[in-house]
Amino acid sequence: MPKLIDHEQRKKQIAEATWRVILEQGMEGATVRNIAKEADISPGSLRHDFASQEDLLLYAMNLVKENAAARIESVAMQDMPPREIALGILLELVPTNEETRAEMEVWFAFTAYFRKKRLSFDAQHDGIYMGVQHIIRQLDRLHLLKKGVNKDMEAEMLYAMIDGLALHALLDPQRLNKEKITNLLNHYLDSICHFE
Amino acid sequence: MPKLIDHEQRKKQIAEATWRVILEQGMEGATVRNIAKEADISPGSLRHDFASQEDLLLYAMNLVKENAAARIESVAMQDMPPREIALGILLELVPTNEETRAEMEVWFAFTAYFRKKRLSFDAQHDGIYMGVQHIIRQLDRLHLLKKGVNKDMEAEMLYAMIDGLALHALLDPQRLNKEKITNLLNHYLDSICHFE
Repeated sequence: MPKLIDHEQRKKQIAEATWRVILEQGMEGATVRNIAKEADISPGSLRHDFASQEDLLLYAMNLVKENAAARIESVAMQDMPPREIALGILLELVPTNEETRAEMEVWFAFTAYFRKKRLSFDAQHDGIYMGVQHIIRQLDRLHLLKKGVNKDMEAEMLYAMIDGLALHALLDPQRLNKEKITNLLNHYLDSICHFE
Repeated sequence: MPKLIDHEQRKKQIAEATWRVILEQGMEGATVRNIAKEADISPGSLRHDFASQEDLLLYAMNLVKENAAARIESVAMQDMPPREIALGILLELVPTNEETRAEMEVWFAFTAYFRKKRLSFDAQHDGIYMGVQHIIRQLDRLHLLKKGVNKDMEAEMLYAMIDGLALHALLDPQRLNKEKITNLLNHYLDSICHFE
C-alpha cells in the first residue's frame, strides 16, 4: 500500500502549502502556479492530484476542518471531569495560539472566497456547530444543565458566541488573549450548568 | 453654506457607490476607476474629494458605522419598555433584511481588507461593542440585571454573540431568519434580566 499512502501524504502537503500561500498572499494568491511553487512541485504534477483549483481549495478547506475535528475528538476522549472537557473543546474552537490563529485565518479566507463564488455554505455541517451541539448534549446527558435551559437555543447561542469570539480573537489577539477567553468560557459554562 | 452641504452630500454619494461596487465585485473591484464610474463622475473629480483610495475606503467604512450608530440612537430614544429597547438595538446589529445584510457584507469586506493591509483594527471602538456596553449599562441602571451578572464579562459575551449571529445570518439567512434571531435575543435577555 505505500503508493496509496504516498498519494494521501502528497495531497496533505499540497494542502498545507495552500494554507501558507493564503496566509502570505490571501486568496487572490492561491493560484495553482503559486501553490505548486510553495509545495516545490510542478504545476503539472499538482494537476495530477487535483483536477481543478476549486477541487484543491475545497480539499484544503476540508483538511482545516478535519484537523480541528481530530483535536476535538482527542479532547473529548480524555479522562477528565465534564467541565474540563467542555472547556477544552471550546478552547479548540477559539484561536489562542499562533497555530490555531493561522488555521482560523485560512478558514475565514475560504469562507469569504466560497461565498463570493456563490458556492453554498453549509453551516449546519461545519465542525463548530457539531462541536457545540455535542457539548450541550453531553452536559444534558450528565444532568449538569440548569433547569429551564433550552438545548436547541443554547447550542445556537453558543455557536454564535464561539464564532464571534474566534473572529474577535483573530482581529484583536492582544485584547482577547487565552486567559481572557478561558475566563469568558468558564463564565458561560457556569451560567448554563450546575457543576458539583 | 450650500457649497459645504453639497460637498458632504457628494462624499456620501461616492461612499454609497463604493458599497455597491464592493457588493458586486468584492474589495478587489473597489478601485478609484470603478467607483468613479459607479458614482457617474470622473476619476479626477473623485480624487478632488478623496486624496487616496485608502482615504475613500476609510470614509466609506466609517459611514457604514455612522449609519448603524444613528439607527441605534433612534431606537434608544424611543419611548418603549427597556426590554423592547434592548431588543430593538440588538436587532439593528444583526442583519435581518436586505439592507442590513448588504451593510454587514460591506463591513466584513472592509474588515478583511484592512486586516490584510496590516492596518490596525480597533475593536473597542467599532459601533457594536459600544452598542452592547450601552445596553448592559442601561439594564444595570434600571436594576433589571439578575444578581451575579458580571457586567464586563456580559458585555464581552454579548459582543461575541452578536458578531457571531451577524456572521451566521449573513452566511445562512434562510436558517437564521428574523423570527429565529428575535427568539434567540429574547432568550438571551431573559437569561440575564428579570423583567417585571
